[in-house]
Amino acid sequence: MSDYRPTPSDKFSFGLWTVGWQGVNTFGAAVRPPLDPADAVRRLADLGAYGVTFHDEDLIAPGSDRSARDAAVKRFRSALDSSGLVVPMVTTNLFGHPVFRDGGFTSNRRDVRRYALRKVIRNIDLAAELGAHTYVFWGGQDGAESEAGKNDHAALERLREAYDILCGYVREQGYDLRFALEPKPNEPRGDILLPTVGHALAFINELAHPEMVGVNPEVGHEQMAGLNAAHSVAQALWHGKLFHIDLNGQRGVKYDQDLRFGAGDVKEAFFLVDLLESAGYDGPRHFDFKPPRTEDMDGAWESAAACMRNYLILREKAAAFRADPEVAAALEAAGVGELSRSTLGSGESVADLLAEDLDVDRAGERGYHMERLDQLAMDHLFGVR
Amino acid sequence: MSDYRPTPSDKFSFGLWTVGWQGVNTFGAAVRPPLDPADAVRRLADLGAYGVTFHDEDLIAPGSDRSARDAAVKRFRSALDSSGLVVPMVTTNLFGHPVFRDGGFTSNRRDVRRYALRKVIRNIDLAAELGAHTYVFWGGQDGAESEAGKNDHAALERLREAYDILCGYVREQGYDLRFALEPKPNEPRGDILLPTVGHALAFINELAHPEMVGVNPEVGHEQMAGLNAAHSVAQALWHGKLFHIDLNGQRGVKYDQDLRFGAGDVKEAFFLVDLLESAGYDGPRHFDFKPPRTEDMDGAWESAAACMRNYLILREKAAAFRADPEVAAALEAAGVGELSRSTLGSGESVADLLAEDLDVDRAGERGYHMERLDQLAMDHLFGVR
Amino acid sequence: MSDYRPTPSDKFSFGLWTVGWQGVNTFGAAVRPPLDPADAVRRLADLGAYGVTFHDEDLIAPGSDRSARDAAVKRFRSALDSSGLVVPMVTTNLFGHPVFRDGGFTSNRRDVRRYALRKVIRNIDLAAELGAHTYVFWGGQDGAESEAGKNDHAALERLREAYDILCGYVREQGYDLRFALEPKPNEPRGDILLPTVGHALAFINELAHPEMVGVNPEVGHEQMAGLNAAHSVAQALWHGKLFHIDLNGQRGVKYDQDLRFGAGDVKEAFFLVDLLESAGYDGPRHFDFKPPRTEDMDGAWESAAACMRNYLILREKAAAFRADPEVAAALEAAGVGELSRSTLGSGESVADLLAEDLDVDRAGERGYHMERLDQLAMDHLFGVR
Amino acid sequence: MSDYRPTPSDKFSFGLWTVGWQGVNTFGAAVRPPLDPADAVRRLADLGAYGVTFHDEDLIAPGSDRSARDAAVKRFRSALDSSGLVVPMVTTNLFGHPVFRDGGFTSNRRDVRRYALRKVIRNIDLAAELGAHTYVFWGGQDGAESEAGKNDHAALERLREAYDILCGYVREQGYDLRFALEPKPNEPRGDILLPTVGHALAFINELAHPEMVGVNPEVGHEQMAGLNAAHSVAQALWHGKLFHIDLNGQRGVKYDQDLRFGAGDVKEAFFLVDLLESAGYDGPRHFDFKPPRTEDMDGAWESAAACMRNYLILREKAAAFRADPEVAAALEAAGVGELSRSTLGSGESVADLLAEDLDVDRAGERGYHMERLDQLAMDHLFGVR
Repeated sequence: MSDYRPTPSDKFSFGLWTVGWQGVNTFGAAVRPPLDPADAVRRLADLGAYGVTFHDEDLIAPGSDRSARDAAVKRFRSALDSSGLVVPMVTTNLFGHPVFRDGGFTSNRRDVRRYALRKVIRNIDLAAELGAHTYVFWGGQDGAESEAGKNDHAALERLREAYDILCGYVREQGYDLRFALEPKPNEPRGDILLPTVGHALAFINELAHPEMVGVNPEVGHEQMAGLNAAHSVAQALWHGKLFHIDLNGQRGVKYDQDLRFGAGDVKEAFFLVDLLESAGYDGPRHFDFKPPRTEDMDGAWESAAACMRNYLILREKAAAFRADPEVAAALEAAGVGELSRSTLGSGESVADLLAEDLDVDRAGERGYHMERLDQLAMDHLFGVR
Repeated sequence: MSDYRPTPSDKFSFGLWTVGWQGVNTFGAAVRPPLDPADAVRRLADLGAYGVTFHDEDLIAPGSDRSARDAAVKRFRSALDSSGLVVPMVTTNLFGHPVFRDGGFTSNRRDVRRYALRKVIRNIDLAAELGAHTYVFWGGQDGAESEAGKNDHAALERLREAYDILCGYVREQGYDLRFALEPKPNEPRGDILLPTVGHALAFINELAHPEMVGVNPEVGHEQMAGLNAAHSVAQALWHGKLFHIDLNGQRGVKYDQDLRFGAGDVKEAFFLVDLLESAGYDGPRHFDFKPPRTEDMDGAWESAAACMRNYLILREKAAAFRADPEVAAALEAAGVGELSRSTLGSGESVADLLAEDLDVDRAGERGYHMERLDQLAMDHLFGVR
Repeated sequence: MSDYRPTPSDKFSFGLWTVGWQGVNTFGAAVRPPLDPADAVRRLADLGAYGVTFHDEDLIAPGSDRSARDAAVKRFRSALDSSGLVVPMVTTNLFGHPVFRDGGFTSNRRDVRRYALRKVIRNIDLAAELGAHTYVFWGGQDGAESEAGKNDHAALERLREAYDILCGYVREQGYDLRFALEPKPNEPRGDILLPTVGHALAFINELAHPEMVGVNPEVGHEQMAGLNAAHSVAQALWHGKLFHIDLNGQRGVKYDQDLRFGAGDVKEAFFLVDLLESAGYDGPRHFDFKPPRTEDMDGAWESAAACMRNYLILREKAAAFRADPEVAAALEAAGVGELSRSTLGSGESVADLLAEDLDVDRAGERGYHMERLDQLAMDHLFGVR
Repeated sequence: MSDYRPTPSDKFSFGLWTVGWQGVNTFGAAVRPPLDPADAVRRLADLGAYGVTFHDEDLIAPGSDRSARDAAVKRFRSALDSSGLVVPMVTTNLFGHPVFRDGGFTSNRRDVRRYALRKVIRNIDLAAELGAHTYVFWGGQDGAESEAGKNDHAALERLREAYDILCGYVREQGYDLRFALEPKPNEPRGDILLPTVGHALAFINELAHPEMVGVNPEVGHEQMAGLNAAHSVAQALWHGKLFHIDLNGQRGVKYDQDLRFGAGDVKEAFFLVDLLESAGYDGPRHFDFKPPRTEDMDGAWESAAACMRNYLILREKAAAFRADPEVAAALEAAGVGELSRSTLGSGESVADLLAEDLDVDRAGERGYHMERLDQLAMDHLFGVR
């Protein structure tokens, strides 16, 4: 039995804001001390991660002058160099400061929208400097509690304008950087613009450079809308738009839990890993979780390590599931492979199709044997085969 | 005060399956007798509707031979002619028969997929014959309870194949018919393919003829995912894809309630009507509801009448809201209009933007006065202004 | 038409923490300055409230010494005296400080449980001193993210122990004070102990002095579990246990929104007011809401005023609904009154009952005309009758 | 490794309506043929079950005369005798027939309430005759879509009246039979009376013979309200009221899925089995699930067998979890045992408590190491320890 020790080749990455989360929420104060970014880098490397990601403010304290900024970056860079960690993705904090209380790119106030753009552009430069290839956007404040207060048409126009400007900037600068939009249905706003992977995918098609923009689905965000995260990721893959992914856990439709990966909907986690591995997704497995407030720093690190452990466990199980001859037989019995055959034959016309007949009552009697297949998956999940 | 009597110019339409719903569900048997389609047409006309819609099986009993089919259509047509009702939309029942237990266009069984296509094509001919301009697709069985049993990539491929074939058929026949996809997150399947308006909009972009295909959002279906239906409809409008709409009511994330329009989330209904009217949507206001099982046929008709009544009430209130000078002032105070100004000025460059500065702490102090605006909406909703 | 100006006789009360909420949540920093309790008292009185409530820490900064505490209380008292506001209820903050990260009365750490008891007892003394008759308990941190970490049996035992100790203390001191438990399903914990009004009502029956303890349902908390708040409050009333109520708004199953009263599920708000008024509930109408982060202080006060305004509007509408002869007829037609007749007649035996027969098929055909009745309610809600 | 073959000593039971479910729901027709009760008995016995349960109508076709009824019972009894299966529980169908469209015991129509009582009493006689010791009540139609149509106070009075009559009848007859109420939040009604385990437990305390009445929690029903089923069952156990349990699966807040046990929230299923086994619950492990419509009869039986298999797998894992020394150490570190110590010491007074002090800032720094403990549970669930 494997001991599930991650190595950089597993491509696990973490946000500085995850292990560094101090625990402030609507009902409680900070429970953990600030975490030095350089310490985070070293510790993540020790645990077997390959990458670290950040919001501008995770690295550089707001209001820093140039020299403070440079010192922070230098210190971080040095930790990266000595630990071997890379920065695969960078993102912007467009939500924490009061100025973003009505949104960033879609704030009703134009000066805020302009400030948001500047904040992103400056951080894109840093992202490029640090070698990141993906830039994530989470517009958590871009939403509304009252429908009257936000003109959706205008908001979508402003969102398009923002991404078109930013794509233009990246192209002008010649950065090797793609954008990934992270949808979320609600919280902190009553309703958030682009609430699901689907809405974001649709939006991207309206951009000047849709090829530069994909999605960054977060497992728990889809689940907050009662959606199956594996299905949403599968659709993103089908569109060729899975540019990044945020792995974590959520137990159903409720507040954003950001549990460690594996600790939410266990079955969906299994099928999501199965999907990522079988679809050949080769980007980072990025954990965007929050160690619960019950944990001290030791617990936070255990939680981080368990994210990776669970991924490795599920990867092993998914591989075993796919290699199991009984599973192959069950897939066949369920007709899973048959769905990959085109419905019309090569050269067949609608007229040919219409000429055919089916005894529907008899065909309707056929079972699909999904329970057998699903139980085989459960058996693998439980490790009892 | 208006008496809220609908007229055909209000463009209200109903599915035969709505007033005709007999009340069968997982836990209970039929509570109402079958409703003759011709009677439904006459009664809907009396109530002030302008249109009636149907699934093939609502009109023509499954297994009917050619003469029974023709007789049913003739009888229906005659009722349409005498009542003046039109058929703005037609759809297919690809869910009720056991043969569709694993889906229609995405059933794992190829012969089922082929049968589904034939069933649709035959009904498209009837739709065109009856003058419908919109053809709706609700793939309620196209989903899964177990992720292993449905290959999403293949399912999306088959769905694309189906719509490409059907678009091709409509073009070949020269029908003046557009397609509208109706998303739903779950029920009757554990998870349904294209679960939200967003996922459907994204999918449409991959079709051979995306211009022929839009969405048919159902209020309650978006709300079953905890999403704000008005926001989803707004995004569909922004994409130019609101080809049809299903109005009804739902009280939160639970089973599909199909309440009469107005009786679910009252505030969202207000803002949805406000949106449809202000955006110039000129398609049918189609009610897809189910009179509760508590009702006999009289109650079913009262429920139908109340759908239209509520729309008219809300339309009047929305108009008053938009015409209210105090609302105009509150919109201004909330910066709603300012969101329609582009973030970059004409001719402005990123360099210009970067040269600017904002006192964010001061700017962060500004309130957006959304509560005042929202309360004005409530006052109009309550009719106390 | 009334102008809906509240007066003290309406018994509206507010928590200091509501208008005083600065806006800190998981994703954003404070957007409003601290609010002086004395200022809050004066402003609430100006708006027409009759009462103000608080957590110990809302009034007395944590760590205050005796003289600072006394000064704060004196200042608050003076504001009460000059404004005429009363303190109908007091509660304890057993959630904000890191020491409560695993709960208060049910923290796994005994010293924390003991501290929690001390904190409550000291604040009960203040509550009695200020003339409060209700003491509310919200054990928001008493829960778990992992089932293994919390022994429910032991937790319920500790909860019982805590309330038995506290009831004993109140009796010993001779305070005229009753306890009201406030249930919540989740947030900030993954699952909270006593998640609904039902669970709390059941728990109370196990206490040494159940007559001293009732519930304080919060509208939004029941709705976070997808439950109908009006039905839960009705059951609390039936048990004689509605000792207090927290009025606010929530739009479905999601994070705790704490919207102003009226701005969530509008229809449920209408029926809740109808219930409170018709059931003769004579306690405070307490608003436990959070002015959205979009608001500055002016907006926060507008939000507070709107809570009361909406209650008064709905109270007027509910009265008109109940006085409407057409509603009376619809209630009769729906058999609503018939439910108040006992099922067995006076003196009737089971044998008598068994001797009777019913033509169930015919009886099953009867409709209940609920849609007509519900639409009359909607008409009153809309103000169109 | 065990092969997880159930035997009667495992006390697994199934409702006739589970394996016999034909698949009718709101959107689809029957997909499986009727199942003969005697065949069901034999097959369940073959699979290793020990008990079978039924609604009156599952066994005796509605409208049967005395001789048809007797023949059906005789045939069923003979199958029981030959297979060795027992009937631990019986229940009544008070939902399927149109006469129950507004409820059974709380229908607004008094004659329906009287009919419901007769229907139950007659079936109670049969239950006693067949040796059942538990009689379950699921009042699925006892609810409302419109608050105005159902007077909750009267409904609770009628519900109390019904149970008092029925308890009286059982006592008079001298039957060894206890009642178990099964809560559900919604579906088929918009809101159902006694929506959660908590509400039902509270209600029971108002009965004339509360000792005769407990609860029958259904895993999926609690989860439909976003509640943790294991916590609700734990509270029922604490009250001494877990008289029966319905095991199945549900994936979050949505329509009632009735998945096979184990296939919903996997983690919660693990902790629920852990709870039942460790709490010494010795009643039936009753599966109330619906084989998905994708299945033919073979699949339905595989689904039934998998319910038992998953229970046995989880039971084994829970035992291993509890026996693991590392788990014991983690429980200790998390303070789980400390919660079983009373908060006040023996003989300690409130004055003693108040004399004590705690350095809260220092105490607040302590972590609870829940993540470590939870991950150990996951490791056991995955079978990787």
